[in-house]
This record gives sequence, structure tokens and C-alpha cells, in this order.
Amino acid sequence: MAEVGIIIGSASDLPIMQDAADILKEFGISYEINVVSAHRTPELMFDYAKSAHTRGLKVIIAGAGGAAHLPGMTASLTPLPVIGVPVKSSNSIDGWDSILSILQMPNGIPVATVALNAAKNAGILAAKIIGSSNPEVLAKLSVYMEEMKQKVMESGEKLKANQG
Amino acid sequence: MAEVGIIIGSASDLPIMQDAADILKEFGISYEINVVSAHRTPELMFDYAKSAHTRGLKVIIAGAGGAAHLPGMTASLTPLPVIGVPVKSSNSIDGWDSILSILQMPNGIPVATVALNAAKNAGILAAKIIGSSNPEVLAKLSVYMEEMKQKVMESGEKLKANQG
Amino acid sequence: MAEVGIIIGSASDLPIMQDAADILKEFGISYEINVVSAHRTPELMFDYAKSAHTRGLKVIIAGAGGAAHLPGMTASLTPLPVIGVPVKSSNSIDGWDSILSILQMPNGIPVATVALNAAKNAGILAAKIIGSSNPEVLAKLSVYMEEMKQKVMESGEKLKANQG
Amino acid sequence: MAEVGIIIGSASDLPIMQDAADILKEFGISYEINVVSAHRTPELMFDYAKSAHTRGLKVIIAGAGGAAHLPGMTASLTPLPVIGVPVKSSNSIDGWDSILSILQMPNGIPVATVALNAAKNAGILAAKIIGSSNPEVLAKLSVYMEEMKQKVMESGEKLKANQG
Amino acid sequence: MAEVGIIIGSASDLPIMQDAADILKEFGISYEINVVSAHRTPELMFDYAKSAHTRGLKVIIAGAGGAAHLPGMTASLTPLPVIGVPVKSSNSIDGWDSILSILQMPNGIPVATVALNAAKNAGILAAKIIGSSNPEVLAKLSVYMEEMKQKVMESGEKLKANQG
Amino acid sequence: MAEVGIIIGSASDLPIMQDAADILKEFGISYEINVVSAHRTPELMFDYAKSAHTRGLKVIIAGAGGAAHLPGMTASLTPLPVIGVPVKSSNSIDGWDSILSILQMPNGIPVATVALNAAKNAGILAAKIIGSSNPEVLAKLSVYMEEMKQKVMESGEKLKANQG
Amino acid sequence: MAEVGIIIGSASDLPIMQDAADILKEFGISYEINVVSAHRTPELMFDYAKSAHTRGLKVIIAGAGGAAHLPGMTASLTPLPVIGVPVKSSNSIDGWDSILSILQMPNGIPVATVALNAAKNAGILAAKIIGSSNPEVLAKLSVYMEEMKQKVMESGEKLKANQG
Amino acid sequence: MAEVGIIIGSASDLPIMQDAADILKEFGISYEINVVSAHRTPELMFDYAKSAHTRGLKVIIAGAGGAAHLPGMTASLTPLPVIGVPVKSSNSIDGWDSILSILQMPNGIPVATVALNAAKNAGILAAKIIGSSNPEVLAKLSVYMEEMKQKVMESGEKLKANQG
Repeated sequence: MAEVGIIIGSASDLPIMQDAADILKEFGISYEINVVSAHRTPELMFDYAKSAHTRGLKVIIAGAGGAAHLPGMTASLTPLPVIGVPVKSSNSIDGWDSILSILQMPNGIPVATVALNAAKNAGILAAKIIGSSNPEVLAKLSVYMEEMKQKVMESGEKLKANQG
Repeated sequence: MAEVGIIIGSASDLPIMQDAADILKEFGISYEINVVSAHRTPELMFDYAKSAHTRGLKVIIAGAGGAAHLPGMTASLTPLPVIGVPVKSSNSIDGWDSILSILQMPNGIPVATVALNAAKNAGILAAKIIGSSNPEVLAKLSVYMEEMKQKVMESGEKLKANQG
Repeated sequence: MAEVGIIIGSASDLPIMQDAADILKEFGISYEINVVSAHRTPELMFDYAKSAHTRGLKVIIAGAGGAAHLPGMTASLTPLPVIGVPVKSSNSIDGWDSILSILQMPNGIPVATVALNAAKNAGILAAKIIGSSNPEVLAKLSVYMEEMKQKVMESGEKLKANQG
Repeated sequence: MAEVGIIIGSASDLPIMQDAADILKEFGISYEINVVSAHRTPELMFDYAKSAHTRGLKVIIAGAGGAAHLPGMTASLTPLPVIGVPVKSSNSIDGWDSILSILQMPNGIPVATVALNAAKNAGILAAKIIGSSNPEVLAKLSVYMEEMKQKVMESGEKLKANQG
Repeated sequence: MAEVGIIIGSASDLPIMQDAADILKEFGISYEINVVSAHRTPELMFDYAKSAHTRGLKVIIAGAGGAAHLPGMTASLTPLPVIGVPVKSSNSIDGWDSILSILQMPNGIPVATVALNAAKNAGILAAKIIGSSNPEVLAKLSVYMEEMKQKVMESGEKLKANQG
Repeated sequence: MAEVGIIIGSASDLPIMQDAADILKEFGISYEINVVSAHRTPELMFDYAKSAHTRGLKVIIAGAGGAAHLPGMTASLTPLPVIGVPVKSSNSIDGWDSILSILQMPNGIPVATVALNAAKNAGILAAKIIGSSNPEVLAKLSVYMEEMKQKVMESGEKLKANQG
Repeated sequence: MAEVGIIIGSASDLPIMQDAADILKEFGISYEINVVSAHRTPELMFDYAKSAHTRGLKVIIAGAGGAAHLPGMTASLTPLPVIGVPVKSSNSIDGWDSILSILQMPNGIPVATVALNAAKNAGILAAKIIGSSNPEVLAKLSVYMEEMKQKVMESGEKLKANQG
Repeated sequence: MAEVGIIIGSASDLPIMQDAADILKEFGISYEINVVSAHRTPELMFDYAKSAHTRGLKVIIAGAGGAAHLPGMTASLTPLPVIGVPVKSSNSIDGWDSILSILQMPNGIPVATVALNAAKNAGILAAKIIGSSNPEVLAKLSVYMEEMKQKVMESGEKLKANQG
């Protein structure tokens, strides 16, 4: 059974949202990807969200653009944490609509919103959520952060070397 | 049976949305008001929207603020025209979130969006929609527009007189 | 006699606005397209708008960009419902001017505004308006929504298959 | 015969727009104020704008808020220069809609837009326009600018004195 | 040992951030509140964030306004999930700076951002994160959502009753 | 002696600003173009602006982008009407900085602002200003507006013909 | 001779800008305050800015709102560093115009911009600039930062104490 | 020992930030460039910033994009003046996030913010800061400004010549 459910409103959002899957794989966290549209398949969204925690999912990642209702509506139907990825899709106004319609949820139904198009960060946030009760994943996250640091340090060394 | 269904996500939006009811009454068009929250009563919203046209409703007016999903989600569940009123509620960022999350619907699921807090215009738009196949309502609309004109003309006369 | 009148301020907006015509044709709804500019042919706009309901039109769709006055001015001259399409034309600031000058109409003169460049949704909204008093069109809309759902479901199946 | 015509869409805009009249009076330039609404009295606007130059007006100042169409529509109906004052009326979104729907006019139909609520500047701009062919008014403008300078200089002296 | 650490950059943010504490108490989740400023006590922030997971914290909630660096900097120093609350403080530009400087984190260091001033939602999100591995908390969340639904239903009944 | 002075802050703005010159030539109005930078040649700007009306200029058109100070500073130094063209230059944030730093002038020093990049409209506005006291130019403007109308009418005919 | 020159476009900006003076006094840095308006006293601004470094000033702080040209124009006339304070004056659109017309200076003429209304920070920045070559002032800045830290630590202690 | 420290959060910002180095070289001011990431190498940032003034640096230039915390965090750790360059990086929303998260610093910790991507201006501002206590650099700045003026004058001459 997958731990993280990734849902996208349209297959056209997959190139952006694949980053979430890739980083989860890197952390050894199981996931599933489904096309679930708030506006085109509302019943499917209902079924998916209402059954998510009974099927063993621990976190849901939902990506959407424009008047992006998928993350918020999913959050209204599940006790699980929902991470929202505002997608700068072709019908979006520079991403502002995607961000505001995901972020500005009313009291009672939070969506954990990440940066515009930041599917990778959604995956890392899902890992952090799982890691908060899973020491093994937590340790992997510390390693991951250490590796990021090393890469920056090395690029700094290279820069210094290039500048003689 | 009511012709226009007015739905609000929270009773706190009633002061704004009452304007829609008032103008419909002025046009002699029947309406009903219900509290239906996309995020707090998603099942109720489903039932309301899916049965709306079978119960005789012709137009739905939905008001909501912040990450305003009620108009768009309702539109995804009914073949009826849905008019969306962006409400500048206390949790809204100057109304921008309300506007964008109602207006920027994806292809296939339009919401007829009116101005921020413009519940009165939502009521008039509902009347125009009904009037498009109802000559009596259409005639009332022409009278209404004529009366607006007269009021402006009179205020112009008064201004002139004052400046005399 | 056409049921829907599509007007554009400039022939250069036709590529965007053609989507409205195409979807209306799909629903079997008659339409006409005219070039009517609020700023360059104000008299023509007056004549068009004032006579629209007498010529049998039921809905007007107006597309415009920048300081977009065509939808609102048309709405001030007809009792018919007017759908406004904000066009992200070359002289527009990312579409914000187009949206605000169509959406933010004063009390008494609503414009049913759809998303930026969403001429297709304008066509569907016109169909929904006609469908609100025409059971045949209403039924077609339900079928259309069902077909959208099927397409999303199929793309989901394909995604699942690809991911093995 | 008045040289400057001031038009407002609603008597409620008079408190803002009166500043234009007051400064014109200060410059000894004749003016008239009329209530002319683009949306509520479109025919009146047509008549007013089309006849303006034949009645001896040299400049038109039009104030409007929200989806503000009065300045642009007037400009489309007269060869005279039209000055637009974006009004931050109660139905405006912090003035952005007022500004953009007046400023962003298409090629061929300019509106001389001034700052939000800047009716006084509209009056001064009208004086500058008249002064461009009227040496007496031009001289008054130079005096006016000199007086502004003196006032600032004096407030600077006072500040210095206070800080002693 | 507390499960959730709430940090605020300034005691003046407490009135807003107290909501997070209150809802956590309602869910029976232990928490601590500390004043930790990214800009005024950077060393304290370092110590707090680096030791958080070793002290048993599972989630950190950080509220900040203006150029709000506390949530993101904390996230860069801990493997734990960090929830950011953009605060519309007195030095903020309508909250836009608060939102963007918390939300738009670079790849590798996500912050789970909630709506402007939405400390209550931050608390609920923390509960959802803890609930994702704690069936008891998960069950409480389902009850909480059911109670929200009932309250909306009751307010709808009352509205109906009032309207006769 | 030229009637209209066109000034640009940098030769790189010429491609945009040339439109002003071209339309003035079309109206038979004399003009001169100068490179005058508020920030790089402040003394030159002072000399240019202070002497403009003594050299016979009647209107100044100033184009600038980013923190665009040229139109406003020029207006502070001359009794002549100054038309400001916000240029979407490479260092501009989508043109917002250009617009706001030209439009939002304080009381006493108006700039007649036109749309983003709308140098052509600046030229037409200059013609309207000159026409307000010059019947010949006024007549040319009426002809120009009539020709615009004819072109739109013809493009409408063509559209109709194409659609059979 | 003063080390820091504070200039304001209007005496009405003094309440905001006084904060700069107060903090400079706290650091023992001499200053002078003058009313110098870019638009109302351009010649005075020229004289002030061109002579500033010859009179011994080391830093200029300029506050302005709306189309705020004072900081940038001053910077174009002096080799000294100019700190710009965007003021949210009554004629400003939520401060956006003030910020953009100060911040977005073209290449060659930088303005050191601080936050909206942040006159205190302008004073501290002036102290940091002076401190960069003055060990005594630098030491005072370190003390100042340490004191800020202590105050936050104490407010944290108090919060802890209050919460028992 | 370098006088100016340039830090960038990622080597990918070097193409933008190199302009700062180039202009400093032109002014004969020594500098160093380091990769220091607020989010990926927070400890390195701490060490860099806390030791900067002890190592002889006089000014720090920090460039960053998106939720740009590097300039502000550095400023919180050093008594030296910090110049922030908002970078329009790929993960930025048109630069607004970069600007606001650098500019809107709280009281006590100013960042001298320059225009979007304006690394060259950051370099010039650093020179102005150094020049405020270094007559030789101050003189070079006056020459630099004079040369800018000459270039604009020459481009004006060329324009005049081309237009015959």
C-alpha cells in the first residue's frame, strides 16, 4: 500500500508533478499517482479523498492550476494532511490564481501549500511529515540536507578555483 | 418551486448576499437561500448541486470568499448556469483571492463571475438569464434600466440647480 | 435568426474568440460573429446592443482586451445577459486590465465574466443560459459534462498503464 | 460658454471631483459640471460627447471608478482631449480597476490619465492644455508653480526654526 | 515533552498565533511557545531549530510578517516539517510580503504555508501531521470535521427558520 | 519651431517612442526628438524643460521606463502640458514601475499619462491638445476617428464574407 | 557640520521621517533635516544635492511617497550614497507606487531602498554606512544589535513566565 | 584583504551578480565572491556574516531570488551595511517575491535594496558607501557620473544627426 498519494487534475500537469514522485522514490517512500479532477470528475475526487486514510495513505499531494480547487476540496474530505502544489499552468495568470486559490483556505481546512510549481518540495515535505514519526526517514532527511550543503560548498570551491 | 437558488458558504456572508435576494424579489422572481459550504459540508454541496435542475431551479447564485471553491465546484456538478459572487470576507486578501479562485475556472466549467461583493448584480444577472426566455421579465429589465437612467438624470438636474 | 451574438472589438481577437463559436456549433446553437468596437465604432455598438433582443438574440458574448469597455457598454444597452471574455491582447498588462475593466461593473449593469481568454467557457456559459429554459440543450450539457469526466478517467487509466 | 466640461458618473463622485472645479475657478477658467453615466445614461453620454466641441468646450474632465468606462467612451466620441480621473470609489479594488480601465486605452483613443483621485491635478492639466495656446493662462501657471515653491520653502524655514 | 513547537518572531504576534495553541489544546496535543526571532536572535533560532527533533518535537509552527524569514530559516535547520503562518503585521504590505517570503522557498527546503493570519489552520495542520501516524488524533480530526459540518447545517436550519 | 517636443531617457527607447513622431507627422504637426535623461543628464533636463515654452513648444511628450522620473520632473519645470509614456523597458517589472512612477504625481504637477508603450496615443493626445485651440487640427482628428471607424467596419464586412 | 542629511518632500512626511533622526541621535551621529521637494522646488533639490558632499555630508536619506522622485533625482546629482524611504502617504496606492518609483532605478544611479515607512531603518543603515569606516560607530552598532537580542530574549522569558 | 564581499546563494546567480564585481573592478575596489546559501549552508552563512567585519570587509553585497533570505539574514549577523540584490531567478514570481523578501525587513535590521537584477547598481552603491569616507573613490564616482552624462549627450547628438 502506498504511503503518499499524488493527484493531478489533468495529465498535462504530470511533467511538473513528476518531481514529487522522483524525490519520494529517492527517500524510499511508496507513492501512487492518479488523475483526479475536482471539476471534471468531482465524484472520483470524493471517493478518492474519503477513502484515502482507510487505504493506508498518510499524506496526499495535490497539484492544480488556475482556479485550483483540487487541494482544498480534497482537504475538506480527509483527515490526512494535504500538500498543495500551485501549478503555473497555461490558463493561469502568472500563477497568482493557482497560489491564492490553494493557500487561502478558510479556518478548519488547511492545505500545506508549497511554492509555485514546487512539486519537488511537496515530495520533501511529505517525507518530513512521514519522518516526524519515522526515525529512519528522519535520518535520511538529515543526510539529504547535509548533501545539499556539500554540493553548495563544492560549487563555492569551484567558483573560487575558477577565479584563481 | 424557486427559480433561483442562492447559496452561501457561511451565514456570515448573508449581509452581502441578501442584496441578490432583494433585487430578485423586486423582479418578482422566486428564490431560496441555503447555507452550503464547499469545505465544511461537501456532501451537502454535492446533493444540492446535482439535484438543482431536477428541482426546477434555473440559475444558481453562489457567494464565497478567500479560496472560494463553492461557485466553481457547484458549476462542476450541474448543467445550470452558476453565477459567482466574490466576497471580500475577513479572511480575504483585499478580495483578490476571492476573485481569482472564482473567475479562473478551467475549460468546460464556466462560472459567470460578477464584481467583488456585487450580490445585487448577481441577482440582476439571474433576472437577465431568466429574461432571455421570458418576455415579461425581459420587459421588467428594460423598465429597470430606464428607471436607473431617470434617477441619474434627476440627480444631474439637482446638481445643476444647486450650482445654479 | 441567431440565438447568440458574438462581438469582438477587433478582428485580431478572432483567433481567441473563435472557440466560443466552435463550442456553440457543437451544442447546435446558432450564432453570429460581428466586429463591433466600443472605441472605434461606438455608434455601431449602440445600434447592435439596443436592437439585439428585438432581433431574437438571447445572449451576447463580448471579447475585449486592455481597457476593455465593449462587454460593459453593451450590457448597459440591452436587457439581455452579456458574457464578457477578458482577452490578453498585446496591449494588455498580463490581462489584469482586461479582467478588471470587464468584471468590476457598477450596480445595475452586470457582465457575466469568464476567465482570461476563456472564449470556450463563454460559449458553454451561453449554452447553460439557453439550457436553463431549454431541456434539450440542458440534456446536451449533461452529456458534455459526462464526456469530460470519461476523458479524464481514461487519461488516468492510461497514466496507470504507463506506470505499470 | 464653458471651456472645460467636468462629467461624473454619479453624484456620489462629486466630493472628489469638486477639486477640479475649484482649481479651474482659481485660474479663471470657465467650466460646467454634469452627471453623465456611461452605464446608466449611455445616450446622454453620446449626446454630451459628440456635441462637446461644437458647444465650445476645449477640454473634458471625466471621473469614474471601478470598471470606469466614462473617460474612454467619451474620448471615443470627441476630437477634444479627455482627462480621466480614476476614482477610488466604494466598489473599487483599492483603485486598481479604476486606473487600469481608464489608462489602458487602445491605439487611436488616448485618455490623459492622472493619479488616483487626483481631480485637482485634472483641473491643473486642463489649465495647462488651455495655457498651451493662451499666454495669459500660461503665465498664471508659472505664477502658480512659483507659489507652490514658496510654500515649500516657507515650510522648510518653519521646520528649521522649530528645530532651532 | 511537547510535540509541537510554536515560535513567534515577536511577542506582538502572540494574539494571532495563540489560535494555533488553542486548537492544539482542543486536540489534546502538547505544545510550547517561544519567542525566537530570525533577525534579532539568529543564534537562538539556530539552537532552537537544530535541537528541535532531538528534544522530541514533531512539528514546528512559525509565524512571521513582512520579510518573514523565520519559517524558512527554521526549515533549513531541521529535518522536521515546518508550518509557516504569514502574519499581516503592521509593517507588512497587505500581507503580500509575509506570504511570498514564506511560501516561495527554494528546492530542498519546503515550508508548509497556510493562509494569511491562519494560525488556527496551522494548529489543525500540525494535528493532521501527527494524526497521519496516530490513529487516535486521526479519529479526533474526523470528529472535528463532522462537528464543523453540523454547525453549518444548523446555521442553515436557523436561516431557513428565520426566513419563514 | 517645433510644436511638440519628444524626449526619451535613452536612445534604446526610440523604437517605442518613434510612433509618437510618426502620428504627429501624419497630422502635419511639427516635432523634435531629443535624448534627455532625468538621471544621467539632470542639468540638460532642467535646461530643456525650463526653456521649452520660451522656444515655442506647446506640448512635451516624455517616455521612460522603470523608476521613470523624466515625465514628472519635466512637468515640475514647465507650465506646458507634459504627456508621459510608461515604457516597458528591459529593467521594468512588467511595466508596473513605469506606470506608477509616471501616473501617481502629487497635487500641483500633473502628467497626462497614457497606456503602457502607447507612444502613438501620446502623439494623438498631443494633436488633441493642439486641436483644442486649432480648428484645422481638430477637423483632422475628426477625420482620423472616422477613418478608424471605416477600417473596423470593413474588417467586419470581410469577416462576414469569410464566414459566408 | 552634519554627517547625514535627511530630506523630505513635504512637511507632512515629518512624523514618519523623524524616526531616522531619532535613531541617528541615539548613535551620536549628527544630522540635518530639510524640506526639499523634487516637484515643487526642483532648483532647491539641485542645489542641495550637488553641494551635499562639499558641505561634508556623508549620507543622504530621502523620504517620499506616490510617484516618489526625490531619492532617485538626488542620487543622480551626488556621488554620495542616497537612502530612499518609500512613504505610504495619503496619495499612495498602498505604498506600491512609492516603493517602485524609488527602488527601480536604472543602471548607474542606485538608491539604497529600505522598507515602506522604515525611516528608523534608514537611520540605522546610515549609521552602518558611517560605521563601515568608523570603528566607534561600528562598535555601537554591535551593541545595538546585542541589545535588540536581549530585549527579544526577555520578552520570551516573560511569555514563558506568563504561561506558567 | 577585500573591501567588498559578494555572496550568492547559488552558482546559478553568478551571471547576474558578476556585474557587481565588474563595476567594482572598474572603480579599483577589491572584492571577493563566495557561494553562501541561507537555506542550504546556514552555518557557513553564520560564520561568513559574523566574521565579515573582523576580516576587513566594509560592505557586503548579497544576491538572492524567490523567498530571498540571504541579504536579510546576513544583515542580522553583521554591523556592516548589506546591499541586497533581488534576483529574478527561475523560481521567482516575476521578481515580486525576491523584492519583498529582501526589502521589507523589520526595524533594526535594514538591507539596502536595489532594483531587480541590478547587481551593477549594487556595485556602484558599494563604491558610494566606500567613497563616503574615501575622497579618491568619491572623485572616481563624480567622473563616472560625468562619463554617463557624456554618453547620453553623444547618443543625443547621433540621434539628431541621423534625423538630419
